[in-house]
Amino acid sequence: MEEPVSKPKAWIISVGNELLIGRTINTNAAWLGRKLTFLGFEVERIVTVPDSIDDIAEEVSRALGRAKVVVTTGGLGPTYDDVTLEGVAKALGLPLEVNSEALDMVKRFYEAKGLELTEHRVKMARLPRGAKALPNPVGAAPGSLVEAGGSVVISLPGVPSEMKAMFEEHVEPYIKRLAPRLQVVECSVRIVGVPESSLAPIIEKAYKLSPRVYLKSHPEGYETGNPVVTVKALASSHTREAAESEAKKVLEYIVRGARELGASISQEGCS
Amino acid sequence: MEEPVSKPKAWIISVGNELLIGRTINTNAAWLGRKLTFLGFEVERIVTVPDSIDDIAEEVSRALGRAKVVVTTGGLGPTYDDVTLEGVAKALGLPLEVNSEALDMVKRFYEAKGLELTEHRVKMARLPRGAKALPNPVGAAPGSLVEAGGSVVISLPGVPSEMKAMFEEHVEPYIKRLAPRLQVVECSVRIVGVPESSLAPIIEKAYKLSPRVYLKSHPEGYETGNPVVTVKALASSHTREAAESEAKKVLEYIVRGARELGASISQEGCS
Repeated sequence: MEEPVSKPKAWIISVGNELLIGRTINTNAAWLGRKLTFLGFEVERIVTVPDSIDDIAEEVSRALGRAKVVVTTGGLGPTYDDVTLEGVAKALGLPLEVNSEALDMVKRFYEAKGLELTEHRVKMARLPRGAKALPNPVGAAPGSLVEAGGSVVISLPGVPSEMKAMFEEHVEPYIKRLAPRLQVVECSVRIVGVPESSLAPIIEKAYKLSPRVYLKSHPEGYETGNPVVTVKALASSHTREAAESEAKKVLEYIVRGARELGASISQEGCS
Repeated sequence: MEEPVSKPKAWIISVGNELLIGRTINTNAAWLGRKLTFLGFEVERIVTVPDSIDDIAEEVSRALGRAKVVVTTGGLGPTYDDVTLEGVAKALGLPLEVNSEALDMVKRFYEAKGLELTEHRVKMARLPRGAKALPNPVGAAPGSLVEAGGSVVISLPGVPSEMKAMFEEHVEPYIKRLAPRLQVVECSVRIVGVPESSLAPIIEKAYKLSPRVYLKSHPEGYETGNPVVTVKALASSHTREAAESEAKKVLEYIVRGARELGASISQEGCS
């Protein structure tokens, strides 16, 4: 059996009171978590903070010592409470200043609509000193990418269509080289007729079969009566075949044990 | 104008690798954020951590000094990676031990299905010493509530139906008395025809009209072309009338300013 692959860590910092008061569901973080996982990173934290410079700076500072990649979303717009880059700059000990590339982007965006640069529009071009400006193909606010202290801090807008486009076009190619070239495969089985608490000892043993497989059981519906439990195995390896075979080995052990307890298996597959 | 109401802080700690790898969208945190906000708390952080005792303990420890109420979700089940209460106990410096009330709950749940107590089922009754066991009307795992160092740490299951039922039946009545009796009202206006960056200076001035209103603009669609911006105002006060009047005062200022710039208002209302 190969050694488990050591993965660089990633943190996601979601900025916005609307997330904390539950008006908005944080779908951005889930999307980024999946992306970063399949790129070969281990997502260690998703932290949601208020639109406050100090709170943002506090969490970015914590991430700096620990994560290779830090992605913030939200708080890049023109309004008074868009303060993400102030928080990032504070954490990095850098001044915030008008970035000429970013200013060009903002200028072109508004010129195309016949609008002038105002103070609040120029604000969107103020990035931490030394940052690379990331073009926004959908909206007005550029993103920011800064390397500091062994980490890369990437700041993207909170509007999902802008965030996704910028991540795929500009962030993904950049951070790919920071992670090992891994193939990540997820396989699952759906076990019907045995409660999760009866599967627990089997899953525990299965887990020990492979340190490179992340295993999780998800009870669906009630645990007893007609219990349904989906078990998922996420495996990473240097080839897709190796990852899939590792995930399947572990799941097959569980399926065998579950069948002995009288379960039926209703679904199997890998993605 | 009344003084702004000082609200006790709340933290939400979501436990589970499935959230970090983006397999599951964290709807629990949004639901809890809204509940806690309307109960009169200020939600300061939502932190998602892996199924790891040390990571859970780290975040619960940070929350202890700062939040009056700490709610964890997930990691209470029978499997080897359900370690939330071990993390909570570690943060509180308390041993984990079988809680007789919790054991009764687990026992009754399985007895009703003709199942025996196994080691993995008893595990669900192991709570931090001194914790109050919270009945789970839907599933097997009891919740836990511990008061320590000026905070209340509440641990609920990750299955949404279980979490919600337990919060409403057992947590809400308990924590209500920790928050000021506040009425929280949210009003919104939908502004069409003016980009967010043009509204920004107006919103900034409006914000200064009332420190008790939390104001946020949400651009929908593109910022220019046919820009649509929804502005929401969340106000808290001792009566519903006072909160609503405060929110409306601020929004009316914005609507006036937006109309001067040629905007039309397509929707107004409070909830």
